[in-house]
Amino acid sequence: MSGSPDSKRQKTADGPKPSHGVEYELIYWPGIPGRGEHIRLCLEEGGASYTDTALVEGEGGGAPAVMAQIAASNKGTATSPPPLAPPILRHGDLTISQLPNILMYLGPRLGLAPGSADGASSSAPYMINQLALTALDGLSNEPHDCHHPVAVGDYYEDQKEEAKRKSKDYVQNRLPKFLGYFQRVLEGEASGQGPWLHGGALSWADVVLFQCVDGVKFAFPKALTAAEKSGKYDKVFALHAAVQERPKIKQYLESSRRQKYSMGIYRYYEELDFDLEG
Amino acid sequence: MSGSPDSKRQKTADGPKPSHGVEYELIYWPGIPGRGEHIRLCLEEGGASYTDTALVEGEGGGAPAVMAQIAASNKGTATSPPPLAPPILRHGDLTISQLPNILMYLGPRLGLAPGSADGASSSAPYMINQLALTALDGLSNEPHDCHHPVAVGDYYEDQKEEAKRKSKDYVQNRLPKFLGYFQRVLEGEASGQGPWLHGGALSWADVVLFQCVDGVKFAFPKALTAAEKSGKYDKVFALHAAVQERPKIKQYLESSRRQKYSMGIYRYYEELDFDLEG
Repeated sequence: MSGSPDSKRQKTADGPKPSHGVEYELIYWPGIPGRGEHIRLCLEEGGASYTDTALVEGEGGGAPAVMAQIAASNKGTATSPPPLAPPILRHGDLTISQLPNILMYLGPRLGLAPGSADGASSSAPYMINQLALTALDGLSNEPHDCHHPVAVGDYYEDQKEEAKRKSKDYVQNRLPKFLGYFQRVLEGEASGQGPWLHGGALSWADVVLFQCVDGVKFAFPKALTAAEKSGKYDKVFALHAAVQERPKIKQYLESSRRQKYSMGIYRYYEELDFDLEG
Repeated sequence: MSGSPDSKRQKTADGPKPSHGVEYELIYWPGIPGRGEHIRLCLEEGGASYTDTALVEGEGGGAPAVMAQIAASNKGTATSPPPLAPPILRHGDLTISQLPNILMYLGPRLGLAPGSADGASSSAPYMINQLALTALDGLSNEPHDCHHPVAVGDYYEDQKEEAKRKSKDYVQNRLPKFLGYFQRVLEGEASGQGPWLHGGALSWADVVLFQCVDGVKFAFPKALTAAEKSGKYDKVFALHAAVQERPKIKQYLESSRRQKYSMGIYRYYEELDFDLEG
């Protein structure tokens, strides 16, 4: 990664073809880290060459570009079915969708799948994928449902009472279950040496767990502060710190490419910020 | 598949080791089709040799066996992290969890991944996985949330009003979106010839979509009857029929191994049985 942290992002306003000479193209909504963030972090850690519609300024970027891409892929291609929704990754003639699927596709290609080099029979990608899926279920999808428990298309304000009930249940029953689970994974033999979830080396599941913990810290600061202080999940928080200190990720997090949490998956509402215990 | 439809299921009460000489071991709750059903259908279609704790009678089977397996895998093994929850698949020394992950592991091994034979670089498993994930998101996870929108650990009766609101939104806004999406996939070029989602041959995504449509038919009969009559999703319903008529699946569905829908993911409550339009 040479030049300024932003130098490889396409910022030209001279056309809608930002992928010229770039290997991967990420199509995701601008303005939030969102589901796209897990992919960005993996691409950054892997030193990949990519464009990101959310960060392309002017023509070819932003929400209009995302909507144009979705419309253009409405029928799919000869190789790829149409995607339902972003995040979408384009790589060669493939259009790949669904976050856990994109991560499983990218992981081995970016060197984020320890043990997967020994051929197609390697189990490592499946061991890593199950961890990533579990983190996304419990620490991304469920936190999203906390502020939209009854209708994803309605405003938060129209489901605020239900959101309070859901958030209290989440923080007090579900969150400790998932934090405890990942603590157990990190204490288990298959995690190997060091701070990582599987096989003694950084994988895409570590990147996902970092981003998930980072998001719930933003959404539920009271509970996460208490969880960290309790010491019960020390390995989970140590993993968060270790990913954050990876040189390429650190550089990325400090750049303007790292978007701020706002009205996406992870939202902070004071009335939903319950503490760990009732 | 020789003998009676039930002949390969272990029904002995003589010990907790049903996996002797059997290739795959499925660990899932008894009494409902549930998330395990997608795996059963794939194993049946692939003619695999497997045991199913849910159907093992007496010692070594049923819910106590599932709980014992979860407790035993609490720390994971040298090769596998601990699973969070069933379904769990054991294959050799691997413990594999997370439904979409188990399916992606099994699909190529059971001949349910067209085009994946041409080496590790084949994109087919990723094209199929994204379709399976989308079906599970919109036609299994969301229907589950319809009857448990605010607290998965609480009774339905304690969240009935929220469930009504969620179900109405689901049936009128979300369900048509997902049925329409799969209709588009089936009309797309990448689906190939015949009734299948991808590459002109049956894949695990077809099996998943069959089971999902089958489940929502049970949970929301009014809406699904209207959807079928509308003709807008004819290819989706044709796929359901085509999977149902596969000889091995047909034999399985007619056997006692096919458990009835009851208090699982797909539930029928008259008060949640909304019609497609307002």
